Amino acid sequence: MSWLNKVVWDDQGLVPVIAQDHATGEVLMFAWMNREALETTARTNEAVYWSRSRRKLWHKGEESGHIQKVREIRLDCDNDVVLLRIEQVGDIACHTGRRSCFFQQYLAGSGWEAVDPVLKDPAAIYGEHGSGSSVAPHGEGDDRGQLE
Amino acid sequence: MSWLNKVVWDDQGLVPVIAQDHATGEVLMFAWMNREALETTARTNEAVYWSRSRRKLWHKGEESGHIQKVREIRLDCDNDVVLLRIEQVGDIACHTGRRSCFFQQYLAGSGWEAVDPVLKDPAAIYGEHGSGSSVAPHGEGDDRGQLE
Repeated sequence: MSWLNKVVWDDQGLVPVIAQDHATGEVLMFAWMNREALETTARTNEAVYWSRSRRKLWHKGEESGHIQKVREIRLDCDNDVVLLRIEQVGDIACHTGRRSCFFQQYLAGSGWEAVDPVLKDPAAIYGEHGSGSSVAPHGEGDDRGQLE
Repeated sequence: MSWLNKVVWDDQGLVPVIAQDHATGEVLMFAWMNREALETTARTNEAVYWSRSRRKLWHKGEESGHIQKVREIRLDCDNDVVLLRIEQVGDIACHTGRRSCFFQQYLAGSGWEAVDPVLKDPAAIYGEHGSGSSVAPHGEGDDRGQLE
């Protein structure tokens, strides 16, 4: 589809994606999409990412139940970054059980501090909805693999 | 500095950065930082990025005057994405003269459409503040080089 050709994919065929709460403006998470993920997201109006650690499509919420209903899809001026304006089901986007993944704040003198509360124990999140696979409790398609 | 060591830099020594209006929540732009850029940003409270196209530090607003005053620096759960909550001087973050770089919206059936207004002619932005270098009017450290 021609609109997918306008997107400038990187040398791995991916584009960075920012997910933002459509109502509050809060930035909830950051992930990646390939062409199929973006096409599926636009067609189904539910966020589907590319998990770099698992090397497969990742329907956000497939384990946690915390799917993202897409209200708007935006592209930046260079055509190489996507912004999703979404409704976060369950109000929790982060695999740590927090609303947003950006819960660590830099404080001069003391460095990064976790300043936002855990709303739900990750074990409970993935225990209730999880497949019991070894991926939980880090869950879903989070890219923790790149940390190693 | 130890807080910089917590950041997971990619294989090019960079981290993706989202800049968000601290008051409205609007996502204004996306760029990259290396270690020196993040350290300088935290020290000066003005956003300094790494321009991948020019391969140098880029003090946002150095040509346009549209500097970004940093109110808060956040890090995500994987320690590999930074979120800046900023005050955008001049109310224009994009080199196209728009408030946000994310001015293109996907509309089913018609594809990407520019839906936000140009607030100021880029020629006027860079003519007023620019150095007259060949970088303008694309301006500053924008990563248009990767489009080629």
